[in-house]
Amino acid sequence: MNKNYYAILMAGGIGSRFWPVSTAKLPKQFHDILGAGETLIQKTFKRLNKIIPKENIFILTNEEYETLVMEQLPEVKKAQLVLEPAMRNTAPCILYASLKIKKQNPNALLVVAPSDHWIEDEASFVEDIQLSFDTCEKEDVLMTLGIKPTFPNTGYGYIQHEKKPSEKIKKVEQFCEKPDYKTAKKFIKQGNFLWNAGIFIWSVQSVLKSFEKFQSQMFHQLNKGYDDINTDREKKFIDESYPQTEKISIDYAIMEPSKNIYVLPASFDWNDLGTWGALYDELPKDENKNVVVNAKNLLENSKGNVIHTSANKTVVIGGLKNYIVIDEKDKLLIYPKKKEQEIKDLVKKLEDKYGN
Amino acid sequence: MNKNYYAILMAGGIGSRFWPVSTAKLPKQFHDILGAGETLIQKTFKRLNKIIPKENIFILTNEEYETLVMEQLPEVKKAQLVLEPAMRNTAPCILYASLKIKKQNPNALLVVAPSDHWIEDEASFVEDIQLSFDTCEKEDVLMTLGIKPTFPNTGYGYIQHEKKPSEKIKKVEQFCEKPDYKTAKKFIKQGNFLWNAGIFIWSVQSVLKSFEKFQSQMFHQLNKGYDDINTDREKKFIDESYPQTEKISIDYAIMEPSKNIYVLPASFDWNDLGTWGALYDELPKDENKNVVVNAKNLLENSKGNVIHTSANKTVVIGGLKNYIVIDEKDKLLIYPKKKEQEIKDLVKKLEDKYGN
Repeated sequence: MNKNYYAILMAGGIGSRFWPVSTAKLPKQFHDILGAGETLIQKTFKRLNKIIPKENIFILTNEEYETLVMEQLPEVKKAQLVLEPAMRNTAPCILYASLKIKKQNPNALLVVAPSDHWIEDEASFVEDIQLSFDTCEKEDVLMTLGIKPTFPNTGYGYIQHEKKPSEKIKKVEQFCEKPDYKTAKKFIKQGNFLWNAGIFIWSVQSVLKSFEKFQSQMFHQLNKGYDDINTDREKKFIDESYPQTEKISIDYAIMEPSKNIYVLPASFDWNDLGTWGALYDELPKDENKNVVVNAKNLLENSKGNVIHTSANKTVVIGGLKNYIVIDEKDKLLIYPKKKEQEIKDLVKKLEDKYGN
Repeated sequence: MNKNYYAILMAGGIGSRFWPVSTAKLPKQFHDILGAGETLIQKTFKRLNKIIPKENIFILTNEEYETLVMEQLPEVKKAQLVLEPAMRNTAPCILYASLKIKKQNPNALLVVAPSDHWIEDEASFVEDIQLSFDTCEKEDVLMTLGIKPTFPNTGYGYIQHEKKPSEKIKKVEQFCEKPDYKTAKKFIKQGNFLWNAGIFIWSVQSVLKSFEKFQSQMFHQLNKGYDDINTDREKKFIDESYPQTEKISIDYAIMEPSKNIYVLPASFDWNDLGTWGALYDELPKDENKNVVVNAKNLLENSKGNVIHTSANKTVVIGGLKNYIVIDEKDKLLIYPKKKEQEIKDLVKKLEDKYGN
């Protein structure tokens, strides 16, 4: 494997739309949510390891999840963990990890990838990453993989690219925030919009150049400790300076202002497993289109539900249509599937009512 | 207290319409289903003990529940337990208990009462029982307490009595099976129908006379062991002869054929807690008419539900109206309240699907 290939595996999220299975204590990426025999982070690590050497895969996560990561990925050394001392959104932590990688290998090419997505076709994934690495090795560009939209999803950001059917890799015109339904429909009709899956590819040189140009304050806040990075002084420096950085996403911080952004439409099927409805789409259904994970069940006059419990639970349901029914230890959720975007807010409401 | 006063507390039922809280292993009467601080059988025992000496209250139950009864009613001696070796419906076990009581006290007056009903006004209950005892002491009659119907309930049997408003205790014209809705409405309009609550009062002499007359086979099957009863030979005799008796209810066996049946309209509020909907009626409601027992909860756009869980459960529900949501250890029920009569059958279906 090419020693210049690196990955930053993003594993700090909480996945609160997957409540009550995904919680701040045990977020989605650490669950075997599809019943695949491996957790999402384990599957993602293996997928990246098809093209990237094990020791070059950095795990970016919160200090709280250090033990979970080490348990689930025993092949990872502690030096590969990049622990945020505070949650500052994606830009500061990607900058921090990039500085560590640059100091280790200034010729590094790296992919930034979420740890909690579902990608079945690993061969196509590897091909797309290889093509992107090849491009980023030759040119000073920032690349992203875009997902061909299958419906006007209002839960994702979109990437608009130039309409040049002959080119495989397309120049990005703009990043678009999560649209309303009408706008999303328009995007799909126009044909040159892709979903932003949060998968980025670039050389460490290119991305740091963009940080220096468009986020110079943040860049200098962390780069001033460059000598300390990858030494035993790193932790002290990061603990002090990291919490000062601005809370901002990588999209806002460098993708939107940069001009040299390209997108490769992904050749694989993808699902962000961002909601119970997204999980529903991936799992086998009974004759009434119910998805039942684990539960012994008796479903009367019930259709299109997703039911997820522990293996010893017996569930009897009558007259429910298109609901999410999740029983996880001391928590029970019964909610309409079409309102699943509300679940994230419900978790906050619940904390306000009863404390965390 | 009058030493001739006796009670037969019926505690052998399974309460399967209260699934999953009430199960064959731990039926309804052994639960504190209203959150009153006492189980239903404990409350019923105390209520009867207001007029009947402790040692004269016999507990009629299945062998399986012996330990439960002794735990929940530690003041009861083992000799007061009447254990069915097999489930034969109510007539054989009432006959068996009556023979035991007659041998102890041939002048006994007794009340037969379910152990799992709710009666708040205990003073009125005692007055009604006293009046009935007084009547049965003087006359050879079989009495029952009837409940004034508040709506055309199709889940109860009805008692039709003579229309003589001047008489407090009314002669019964007939016992009617659970009616359909139209018939139930007609009953209520006619004004001389009461709900059959399964509360009977009679002298031990009168009831045994009726058994001998209308159920002579059953009477002789058990009375032939009269000498053994209340001795250490009783168990052997009952184990052999009891399973031979006919499975028949007390209503069919003696109330319907007998001519000397009277009913006293009860002066107290009563609820058989036969279903989750009946429980719903008795408990305090939130501003959206939801009844929540125990659960920490967040209910969005949800009305008229009854939610019953363990105390440490957090429940989040959206868009549910008039549902029963019960989480009990390894069982979860989500069912429309108006279809609650189906629950009994669902339990059977479930057993067929997965075994018991």
